[in-house]
Amino acid sequence: MSFPESIHALVLAAGKGTRMRSNLPKVLHTLLGEPMLWYIHQTLEKLFGDRVHTVIGCGADKVQAAFPERQGRFVLQAEQLGTGHALQVAWESIMSLGLRHVVIVNGDTPLLPANRVQQLVDAALMGNAALAFLSITPSEPGAYGRVLRGDDGAVKAIVEAKDYDVAAHGPDRGEVNAGIYFLDMQLMAPLLPLLKNENKSGEFYITDLVNLAVSQGLSVTAVECGEQPELMGINSPFELVCAEERLAAAIAAEWLQKGVLVRNPGLARIGPRVALEPGAEISGPCELYGRTVVHCGARVDSNCVVRDSELDSGAHLRHFSHAEGARLGPGSIAGPYVRLRPGAVLEECAHAGNFVELKKAVLGKGAKANHLTYLGDVEVGEGTNIGAGTITCNYDGKLKHKTFIGRNVFIGSNTALVAPITVGDESLVGAGSTLTKNVEPGELAIARQRQKNLKRRK
Amino acid sequence: MSFPESIHALVLAAGKGTRMRSNLPKVLHTLLGEPMLWYIHQTLEKLFGDRVHTVIGCGADKVQAAFPERQGRFVLQAEQLGTGHALQVAWESIMSLGLRHVVIVNGDTPLLPANRVQQLVDAALMGNAALAFLSITPSEPGAYGRVLRGDDGAVKAIVEAKDYDVAAHGPDRGEVNAGIYFLDMQLMAPLLPLLKNENKSGEFYITDLVNLAVSQGLSVTAVECGEQPELMGINSPFELVCAEERLAAAIAAEWLQKGVLVRNPGLARIGPRVALEPGAEISGPCELYGRTVVHCGARVDSNCVVRDSELDSGAHLRHFSHAEGARLGPGSIAGPYVRLRPGAVLEECAHAGNFVELKKAVLGKGAKANHLTYLGDVEVGEGTNIGAGTITCNYDGKLKHKTFIGRNVFIGSNTALVAPITVGDESLVGAGSTLTKNVEPGELAIARQRQKNLKRRK
Amino acid sequence: MSFPESIHALVLAAGKGTRMRSNLPKVLHTLLGEPMLWYIHQTLEKLFGDRVHTVIGCGADKVQAAFPERQGRFVLQAEQLGTGHALQVAWESIMSLGLRHVVIVNGDTPLLPANRVQQLVDAALMGNAALAFLSITPSEPGAYGRVLRGDDGAVKAIVEAKDYDVAAHGPDRGEVNAGIYFLDMQLMAPLLPLLKNENKSGEFYITDLVNLAVSQGLSVTAVECGEQPELMGINSPFELVCAEERLAAAIAAEWLQKGVLVRNPGLARIGPRVALEPGAEISGPCELYGRTVVHCGARVDSNCVVRDSELDSGAHLRHFSHAEGARLGPGSIAGPYVRLRPGAVLEECAHAGNFVELKKAVLGKGAKANHLTYLGDVEVGEGTNIGAGTITCNYDGKLKHKTFIGRNVFIGSNTALVAPITVGDESLVGAGSTLTKNVEPGELAIARQRQKNLKRRK
Repeated sequence: MSFPESIHALVLAAGKGTRMRSNLPKVLHTLLGEPMLWYIHQTLEKLFGDRVHTVIGCGADKVQAAFPERQGRFVLQAEQLGTGHALQVAWESIMSLGLRHVVIVNGDTPLLPANRVQQLVDAALMGNAALAFLSITPSEPGAYGRVLRGDDGAVKAIVEAKDYDVAAHGPDRGEVNAGIYFLDMQLMAPLLPLLKNENKSGEFYITDLVNLAVSQGLSVTAVECGEQPELMGINSPFELVCAEERLAAAIAAEWLQKGVLVRNPGLARIGPRVALEPGAEISGPCELYGRTVVHCGARVDSNCVVRDSELDSGAHLRHFSHAEGARLGPGSIAGPYVRLRPGAVLEECAHAGNFVELKKAVLGKGAKANHLTYLGDVEVGEGTNIGAGTITCNYDGKLKHKTFIGRNVFIGSNTALVAPITVGDESLVGAGSTLTKNVEPGELAIARQRQKNLKRRK
Repeated sequence: MSFPESIHALVLAAGKGTRMRSNLPKVLHTLLGEPMLWYIHQTLEKLFGDRVHTVIGCGADKVQAAFPERQGRFVLQAEQLGTGHALQVAWESIMSLGLRHVVIVNGDTPLLPANRVQQLVDAALMGNAALAFLSITPSEPGAYGRVLRGDDGAVKAIVEAKDYDVAAHGPDRGEVNAGIYFLDMQLMAPLLPLLKNENKSGEFYITDLVNLAVSQGLSVTAVECGEQPELMGINSPFELVCAEERLAAAIAAEWLQKGVLVRNPGLARIGPRVALEPGAEISGPCELYGRTVVHCGARVDSNCVVRDSELDSGAHLRHFSHAEGARLGPGSIAGPYVRLRPGAVLEECAHAGNFVELKKAVLGKGAKANHLTYLGDVEVGEGTNIGAGTITCNYDGKLKHKTFIGRNVFIGSNTALVAPITVGDESLVGAGSTLTKNVEPGELAIARQRQKNLKRRK
Repeated sequence: MSFPESIHALVLAAGKGTRMRSNLPKVLHTLLGEPMLWYIHQTLEKLFGDRVHTVIGCGADKVQAAFPERQGRFVLQAEQLGTGHALQVAWESIMSLGLRHVVIVNGDTPLLPANRVQQLVDAALMGNAALAFLSITPSEPGAYGRVLRGDDGAVKAIVEAKDYDVAAHGPDRGEVNAGIYFLDMQLMAPLLPLLKNENKSGEFYITDLVNLAVSQGLSVTAVECGEQPELMGINSPFELVCAEERLAAAIAAEWLQKGVLVRNPGLARIGPRVALEPGAEISGPCELYGRTVVHCGARVDSNCVVRDSELDSGAHLRHFSHAEGARLGPGSIAGPYVRLRPGAVLEECAHAGNFVELKKAVLGKGAKANHLTYLGDVEVGEGTNIGAGTITCNYDGKLKHKTFIGRNVFIGSNTALVAPITVGDESLVGAGSTLTKNVEPGELAIARQRQKNLKRRK
C-alpha cells in the first residue's frame, strides 16, 4: 500500500514532553531500544515513501543527530507555540513541494497502525474531504475534545471536554479527536491564518481547523477507530511503559508463532528491528535490540542482553552474556559472562568463555579464550589458545595499538601483551610473561623471574 | 494523624513461626529486603511515636540485634505461652508507663494499614469501649474465631470456628476476629488473670478477653474491615510470598505513577525505603533495596541488584551489576558486571567497567578502572587510569592495608600493588609489574623480567 | 498403582517434528531442562515398571544416546510410514514378550497425566474391550478425528474432521481422539495388516484400527477426559512453550505450598528432578535444573542458573551465579558472579567470590578464593587463602595437569601456578609470582623481578 505522490506526511515532533521529566526530547524516548519517532517514521515510510517531513523544535539537534539519514526532511519550529503553529511553520516548505494533501501525525504515537492512516486517506479521498481526522472512543475519554455529529452522522464540531454540555450537545458518546489529520492544502490555506491562541496555554491548535472548516461549509470527515489505544499519545513514563509492555508482548508472541522457540516469552524483550529465524532459540529473561539477527539453530540462553549482533547457525550465547555489535560464527560458543563489544568476532567454532571481554577482537576459527581475559584491538589466528588471565595492553595512555597473534599459538596464562606487538604462528608464550617485543613464528617467548623458595617467616 | 500520649502500642513478636520452617524468628523474615517487624514498627510509629513496645521471645537476641535503635522498648516473654500470656508479661512494664489504653498488634501483619488502626482507636474512644477489635470477612474464613453480634449489631461473643452451631448462633456471616485489639487497661486489669489455657494448645489467648468483657457487661466494639487481606497474619512461606508479590507490584506502580521510568515494572522489586526521583530510569528485572536513592537523570539498567546505594544525576549503572553501600557520582558509569561493595565511590564521571570489584575504594573524578580489576582499600586520584587486570594486594593474611594512587597516574595492565603503598601523582607503572615500594610523583616504576625469545620445542 | 505384567506400554517417538524447525528429534526437545520423552518414560514407568518400549526412528542414535539406561527397550522404525506402521514394526518384538495388552502413547505428550492412563486401562479391562482409547473435548477441536457415538454412547466410528457431515453424523460434539490406545493384542493381530495408507500423507494410522474393530463387531471403548490440554501433542515451538509455562508455574507453586520459600515464584523455573527441602529459600528470576538439591536453610539468590548441583544446609549461592555439577557444603558461600563447573566443591564454610571459576576444584573447609580467579583441576586445603587474580595453569596445550595446595597456605595475588605442582601446607607465595616448581611445607616461594623506579618520560 502506498499513496499518490501528491500526498505527504508531516510528523509533529517539536514538543518537549515536560511530563517525561527528562532532558531528552520526548520523541527520542525509546520503546524496546528504538526512539518513538523511529516507529512513526517506519510506519509512514511504508505509506509515503520519502515524503515524510518532521517538525522538530525542542532538542532539535539531538533529534537530527538521531536520524542522520533524514537530513533535508526536517522542518524547524524554533518557538513551540502549539500544533497549529507547527503546521503554519511547516506550511511554506511543504507547499513548495507541490503537494495537494498532507497527513499530520503526532510523533508521540509510536504504535500508530498503518492501516488506520490508510483508512483515513481512503475515506478522505473517496469523500472528497477538505479535512478528515481519526477519532477514537477510549474507555476513559477524559479531557480529549469530543466529536459532535449530526443526526446524519456528519461531523458538526469538536467540543472541548470542559465545554461539553449534555443539554446542548446531547449525551456524551465519548468519541474524541485522536489528533491525526488529513488536509486538503488548497482548501485549508485560507483557514490556517485564522487559528487563534486565545486559550489557557496560549497555543495555536490544529484541532480548531475542524470547527473553522465546518463553519465554512467544507466537507469534514471523522473516521472512528473504536477504543484503539495505539492512537493515544505517550505523555508520561507511565504511558510509555504501558505501550512498551504491549509491544514487547506482541513481538514475542509473533516470533513464537512464526516458529522461533522463545522460552519464557513473557520475559523476552525483542526490539522491532531484530530478525529471528524459525529454528532459533532464545530464552527469557533476555533483551534483544537493534539490528540483532539470530539464525536457525543458533541459541541465546536466558539472562542475556544483545544489541546489533548476529549469531550464525549453531552459535550459542550462554547465560549472563552481553553482546553489542558482535558476530558469532557458525558453531561458536560465548559465555557465560562474556562481554562482547563492538567489533568482537568469533569465527567458526571459536570459544570465548567466562569473564572474558572482547573489543575489536577477532577470534579465528577454533581459537579459544576461555577465562578472565581482555582482548582489545586484536586479531587471533585459527586454532590459537589464549590462556586464562591474558591481557592485551592496547592503550598506552594516549593511543590504542594493535596486537596480532598467529595461528596455533599457545599463550600461557596470566600473560600481558604490550601492543603494538605481533606473536607469530605456532609460537608459545610462557605463563606469567609480559611481552613487549614481537615473537617470530615457532619461537618460545618468556619473560619471568626464576622462582626462589625460602623459609617462610611467621 | 497521631494519638494521645496515654495510648501505647504493643507488638506481639515472640512467636517462633514453626510453619516458616526456618531458624529465623518469624518476624525477621523479610519482604523486599526489610523484616516484617520493620513494617509494623514503621506503621505504628507514625501513629504512636516512640510509644511502641515489642514483646519478643523466640530468637529475642536476633530481633534485638536487628533493631538496635529500639533498645529499651522490648519486653521479653521468656516462655511463649500464648498471646494472652504475652500480654500478662508485658502488662506490668506497660502499666508503669502510666498509660490508659493499649493497642495490640501481631508482628506478622506487615502490611497492616495505618488507617485501620486509626479507625479502631477512633471507634473505641468515641464509643468509650472497654475493649475494641478489628474484624474481617475473608473469602475463606476457615478456622478463625467468628464474631457473633446481637440484633442491634453489638458484639455478643467470639465463637471458635469448630464450636460454631448454626442452630444456636444463626447463619455464619463469616466475620472473624483479626486479632488487633484496643484495651482500656484499667477495665481489663481484673480480667487478665482470669484467662485460662484449657484448650488444645494449652495457651492463653487474648481473644478470650472479648467473651470475658461481654460477660461482665463491659462495652465491646468490633470494627469490621471487609475482606482486607492485609490484616491476615503471615504464617508460611506461601503467605509471605503472596504478601511480598502484592507489595512489590504496588510499589513499582506507585513510582511509575510518580514519574519514574520503571521499565518492565512487573519485574522490578523495590524496597519500601528506596527513594526514586521523577526522571530516574530503572528497568526490570531488577532489585533495589535498603536506603537506595536514584536521582533524576540517573539510570539503572536491567538485571541489577542494588542495596543501600546512591546514584547521582546522570550516573549510569549498567546491566548485571551488583552494588551495596556504593555511591555513584554525577555522570559516572559502572558496569556491566561491576561489583560495588560497601565504600565503593565513583566520583564525577569516573568509570568502573566489567568484571571489576571495588571495596572501600574511591575512584576520583574522571578516573577509570575498566576491566578485570580488584580495588580494595584504595584511593585513586582524579584522571588516573587503572589498567586491565590490576589488583591491589590489600590483605597480607592477617591485616588489610591501604593503597594510595595519585592524580593522572597510568597503571599498566596486569599489575599487582602490594599494600601499604603509595603511587604518586603523574607517575606511570609498567604493565605486568608487582610493586612493593612507593612510587614518587612523576616516576616510572617497573618490575618485570626481560623477554627472551627461544626456539619452541615441539 | 501398577499394572499386571501382561500389559506393556509402547511409546511412539520416531517422528521428526518438522514444525519444530530443528535438527533435534522432536521428543528430545526439552521442558525445564528435560526432554519430552523423559517425562513420558517417568509417567509410564510408575505404571508399567520396566515394560515400557519406545519406537524410535528420526535421530534414533541421538534418542538412544540421551537414554542409555533404556538400552534394549528401543524398537527401531527405520522408515517412518505413520503410527500404524510403527505399531506393525513393533508388533513382532512385543509379541515375543508374551504380553496380552499394550498401551500406546505418543512421545510428544510429556504432560500426560498418569491417572488418565490408569483410567484407560481400568475401563478397558473392566469392559473387556478389544480396543480402548482416550478422547478429549478441546475448546478448538480443529482437524482432530471426531468420535461418533451411538444413542447408547457406544463408539460407532472415528470420522475425520474434513469428512464430518452434520446431516449424516448429527451435531458435532467436538469429542476427538487423543491418540492414546489400549489394545488387546490377540484380537488386534488380524486387523493390523488391514491398515491402508490411502490418504493424503500416504501413511498408516493406528486411528484406522478403531473403525476396523467396530466393523468387526469388537468391543471398542472411548474414555472421555474433558478439555485436558495435557493430552494434546506438542508439535511446534508455540505448543512447547505453552506446556513449559504451565509446568513451570505448577512446579513453583507446588514447592511454595510445601514450605519452600520461593520468592518471585512466577520467575522461578524449576525442573522436575529438582529436590527442595522445606526451609530452603530460592528467588526468581532463577533456573534450577537437573538433579539439583537445595537443603533446608540453604539459599539461592535471584538471577542464578543451577544444574545438577547440591547446596547443603546454610550454603548460600549469591546473585548472578552459574553452577553445574557443583556441591556447596554447609555454611559455604559462593558468588555473586561465581562460575562453578562440574567437580567444583566448596567444603564447609569455604568461600568462592566474584568473577571466580572453579572446575574440578575442591576448596577445603574455610578456604577462600574471593576475586578474579581460575581454579581448574585443583585441591585446596583447609583454611587456605587464594589471592585475587590467581590462575592455575592446568593446560599445557595438550594435557591437563593437577595442582595441590595444602592447608593454611597464603597464595599472594596475581599468581600463576603452572601444573603439575604442589604447594605445601603453611607455605606462602609472594604476589605476582609464576610458580613452576613445588613449594615445600612452610616455605616462602617468590618469583618476581625487583622493582625499579625511574624518571617518567613525558
